Amino acid sequence: MRSRVSSMAAGSSVEWLKSVKAVVLDMCGVLYDSAEGGGQAIAGSAEAVRRLMDSGVTVRFCTNETQNTRERFLQKLRVMGFDISVSHVFSPAPALIHILKERGLRPHLLVHDDLLPEFDGVDMSSPNCVVIGDAADNFSYQNLNEAFRVLIGLEKPLLFSLGQGRYYKETDGLKLDVGVFMKALEYACDVQAEVVGKPSAEFFQTVLSDMKLQPHEVVMIGDDLLNDVGGAQRCGMKGLQVRTGKYRPSDEQHPSVRADAYVDDLAAAVNAILTDH
Amino acid sequence: MRSRVSSMAAGSSVEWLKSVKAVVLDMCGVLYDSAEGGGQAIAGSAEAVRRLMDSGVTVRFCTNETQNTRERFLQKLRVMGFDISVSHVFSPAPALIHILKERGLRPHLLVHDDLLPEFDGVDMSSPNCVVIGDAADNFSYQNLNEAFRVLIGLEKPLLFSLGQGRYYKETDGLKLDVGVFMKALEYACDVQAEVVGKPSAEFFQTVLSDMKLQPHEVVMIGDDLLNDVGGAQRCGMKGLQVRTGKYRPSDEQHPSVRADAYVDDLAAAVNAILTDH
Repeated sequence: MRSRVSSMAAGSSVEWLKSVKAVVLDMCGVLYDSAEGGGQAIAGSAEAVRRLMDSGVTVRFCTNETQNTRERFLQKLRVMGFDISVSHVFSPAPALIHILKERGLRPHLLVHDDLLPEFDGVDMSSPNCVVIGDAADNFSYQNLNEAFRVLIGLEKPLLFSLGQGRYYKETDGLKLDVGVFMKALEYACDVQAEVVGKPSAEFFQTVLSDMKLQPHEVVMIGDDLLNDVGGAQRCGMKGLQVRTGKYRPSDEQHPSVRADAYVDDLAAAVNAILTDH
Repeated sequence: MRSRVSSMAAGSSVEWLKSVKAVVLDMCGVLYDSAEGGGQAIAGSAEAVRRLMDSGVTVRFCTNETQNTRERFLQKLRVMGFDISVSHVFSPAPALIHILKERGLRPHLLVHDDLLPEFDGVDMSSPNCVVIGDAADNFSYQNLNEAFRVLIGLEKPLLFSLGQGRYYKETDGLKLDVGVFMKALEYACDVQAEVVGKPSAEFFQTVLSDMKLQPHEVVMIGDDLLNDVGGAQRCGMKGLQVRTGKYRPSDEQHPSVRADAYVDDLAAAVNAILTDH
């Protein structure tokens, strides 16, 4: 199986994989391919997660999923064969709600309907900031105009974006992600959004703190070169890109971000990590 | 009426206005305020245009309007009291079609339904570029995804944007303009769009060539500080901002673009130009 792991430079080593103490896993594109209303596990990934957890390696999950509450999201994954605890999943919405409370902010939301329960109890009267998530079909011209009017009406426009991804893959094709609409509203109002979720360093730090580990002891495995691999590397973690999900061959020639290794899929990565374990 | 004309620095002169040989007028926000399906003339502007044309000053019209063919657009304006010839109106769609033909390009269109007749006879099979205009309600998540998939599927994504405005004002409020969706697709595909229309220098040059005048002999009057005033100034023309349409008081404190004068409305500008004429 080791032949399925290739590193950037021919002949360079992936020996370091054997000594990582913890693995942070992106979910969509690594564990499963999403589809409207569901999705399907990537071959071998459910078993790979089980083997990794059983081996004693610390495992956490880090997702920019904002189309569901974490509870509903994990229910979906359970059907696909993944048994993951809510406390091991880090997603943008809870992190944002913490920020809103701390700073006394009242959001105007442009998010997916299924994420709304996360905001139960959050004061949304006279909004003084705008929050966008992966709203999918809710990204209509009308809803974007509404969010824009709230923003431009504020003395100092304040925009939070739950992630800054460009696009993701569903079984019926590539779909635009929240980052695209963040850029749209940034340009409309001449502001810079505060990104909550990957690749924000704060977000990765929360995961590291939870594990009580140093960044160099941890590898992030993701299908997104910039948000998973690049974000983790900027925090001192190793970054592995899998060739599943939104991976594109041109990622391996990216001018500024290079994964520490490129791996066919999660099963191959786990094989490499567990060799000699 | 001269008291209604104010220039940037207190006491500075607007004497130069009297010596301009030609006036280029932005249309929406200067001549009229738009509304879905129509709009209404800004008080005094129809008479101001008539006086200007009768005075012997050369007048041209320069619009980023892409929700209509020029013919239909001028019909709308006729109802509001403006009698303008098609040959005096410069808009992005005809300029773009010229570029497409010259470069053998076949567009995938994301534009307003009412603009489609401009593209009669344009080959749109196997698109090798994407064109976006002010598509308004056609900027749905589904249509944006479709345009994105065409772009990302091209070996070298090629995106044309009919203007790069941030927003405009309709009678029922501010609305997001094409530039916002240009930025969205630019980010999604990591490309830079080619802008056709204001503030592209090429576009202003076409108007200057048509008038056979030097830039310093011409003043552009618009409500958009960046696209009208800034664009014209970069071509060596004078730029006047009217305090109608999308004008906002903060425009007068913009860090990098300053109009040569700020004027309450078109009537006041024409009064200043025609003094001593």
